[in-house]
Amino acid sequence: MTEMRRDLLTGSVAIVAPVREARPEELVEAQLPGHRMLPCPFCAGNERHTPSPTLVVPHPSSPHSGSWCVRVVPNKYPAIPSADGPLSGSIPPSPLFECAPIAGGHEVIIESPIHVSSLSQLDSDQAGRVFGAFAQRLGHWQSTREVRYAVVFKNVGASAGASLQHAHSQLIATSFLPPLMRNILDNTQRHQRESRRCLLCELTDAESAFQRRVVTETDNFIVYCPYASSLPYQMRVVPKVHADRYEASPAEHHAELAALVRGLVVVLESTHQPASYNFIIHTRPPRGGEPDAFHWWLELFPRLTKLAGFEWASGCVINPLAPEAAAAHLRGLLSQGIC
Amino acid sequence: MTEMRRDLLTGSVAIVAPVREARPEELVEAQLPGHRMLPCPFCAGNERHTPSPTLVVPHPSSPHSGSWCVRVVPNKYPAIPSADGPLSGSIPPSPLFECAPIAGGHEVIIESPIHVSSLSQLDSDQAGRVFGAFAQRLGHWQSTREVRYAVVFKNVGASAGASLQHAHSQLIATSFLPPLMRNILDNTQRHQRESRRCLLCELTDAESAFQRRVVTETDNFIVYCPYASSLPYQMRVVPKVHADRYEASPAEHHAELAALVRGLVVVLESTHQPASYNFIIHTRPPRGGEPDAFHWWLELFPRLTKLAGFEWASGCVINPLAPEAAAAHLRGLLSQGIC
Repeated sequence: MTEMRRDLLTGSVAIVAPVREARPEELVEAQLPGHRMLPCPFCAGNERHTPSPTLVVPHPSSPHSGSWCVRVVPNKYPAIPSADGPLSGSIPPSPLFECAPIAGGHEVIIESPIHVSSLSQLDSDQAGRVFGAFAQRLGHWQSTREVRYAVVFKNVGASAGASLQHAHSQLIATSFLPPLMRNILDNTQRHQRESRRCLLCELTDAESAFQRRVVTETDNFIVYCPYASSLPYQMRVVPKVHADRYEASPAEHHAELAALVRGLVVVLESTHQPASYNFIIHTRPPRGGEPDAFHWWLELFPRLTKLAGFEWASGCVINPLAPEAAAAHLRGLLSQGIC
Repeated sequence: MTEMRRDLLTGSVAIVAPVREARPEELVEAQLPGHRMLPCPFCAGNERHTPSPTLVVPHPSSPHSGSWCVRVVPNKYPAIPSADGPLSGSIPPSPLFECAPIAGGHEVIIESPIHVSSLSQLDSDQAGRVFGAFAQRLGHWQSTREVRYAVVFKNVGASAGASLQHAHSQLIATSFLPPLMRNILDNTQRHQRESRRCLLCELTDAESAFQRRVVTETDNFIVYCPYASSLPYQMRVVPKVHADRYEASPAEHHAELAALVRGLVVVLESTHQPASYNFIIHTRPPRGGEPDAFHWWLELFPRLTKLAGFEWASGCVINPLAPEAAAAHLRGLLSQGIC
């Protein structure tokens, strides 16, 4: 069975083609060490190699010693500048060449003072502090004038776009609303208008009733492989009770989510080493529709496939693993109690 | 200067952030040999390992010997099935889970009877035969009932999604219009309605007048790095005279394009080995708008960057190399006469 599936939430279209899974692979990619950063700018003791921090979480065992357990710093190589810089402008000046200034922020959340490379190497308490720092910094940026969008994300492994090994996540805030968030807002607002319900509440209820794509649950979260998954083992981690903003959720939820995501990362690392994956926290943007319509969530996906010519040509991703099969495999790994 | 640029043709949004180019890379990816296919299913003599061909171009020096120089076969692991198969259906059946059957074709264009791995290893005549085969097969699929879209593309290197080394391209035909082509048709039709001109004619005239993003020209084609390039060294190869369909263009144009693209591949291979790149031929789909509005083109791009968490979250690609700088570098390499 090969079929086209559309994700009502994001609008993305996936071609689910399990026959592709059997194809032989003469070429593979491996992650190699590149230019080694010595000293690692994220390790304790090397703070002078990063810009001044925007958040320092003191070490819980010695809160007054000046030592830290989580540290947030501006990215030294920002994708988004902190203020409108001089623009090249539309070159040549013409309505054919649309250009807009951007400003906002780009921060790095350093997840440990010591040189660990994975969330799985942190204990659950420390992971909780990291997810608490996400909330604090999102809170800051979401209330900053002119910010229209803020997102926390994590890149692990070269295939997922990471360039440094020391465990870290990132936050980007922008003065414009990017196309994918615009789609999500349009889709969720329309659904709310038409059916008086939150789209993600409804999708999650249906997944929960169907069970076949559910990976696991905790008190406050459910994890499933979305129906129209673009990528193998893509997982959606959704709060069971409607809430529009990650950063406004109670600290216990951040800690529970941190422990849950940490466990899912252990599962991903058990199947592929070194693991390459991303996660993203989608939270309601400032002035982004109605709180009743938007439901925050975390999306986690290993990077096992490549976007090839067809994907760049068509905007459709070919997924060789049906999400029903992915969820069954992930449930099997979790039931072996490896995390 | 960091700025957001929008491509009027595809609607894609890029963040051009040259400051990112300087960031250190502790992690890099390398292509390694995977499971070696022995015998290579694409080599002459191993024809039994592929499905029956849909096109065989006889060897020009011995046209009656049965030996071939280009061979097109159905993909053994098709992303698109040849006919509607049994669907899993929307599971569970619900308007929340949109699913559509798909049918069409997925073919492999084998570019040489011997085990070469790059277009650059073919002479220009042989490259011309390959590009002629693209036209023949596009012609077939574009006139097949129920086909709404057909595209020729090439994946080279593991980063670009290639799984086999033997030089080949692919063709996918689908019974639905994918989102990116829908955007292109919408954008070009709107422009035509509003200004009575073809959008790509107008963009190309502006690039040609501006010159700073132009890479090279031949009698019938111009190559430039598009204003809102998502990827470093992205190149748009555009016929100078308006034409809506690649497959309807004269054979001399296919040969001229083949020699031009072959030369550009030599340039890409001179900077990165092994080179990873894709190209795509965008041609007007069956029933896809007006011939006056759609202008066919080829897009060529090396795969030097990764789509990371921010790109998956936002739908915006961060490009660390301004297209003006990319074009200047490419012009420099071409002027050294390496191809």
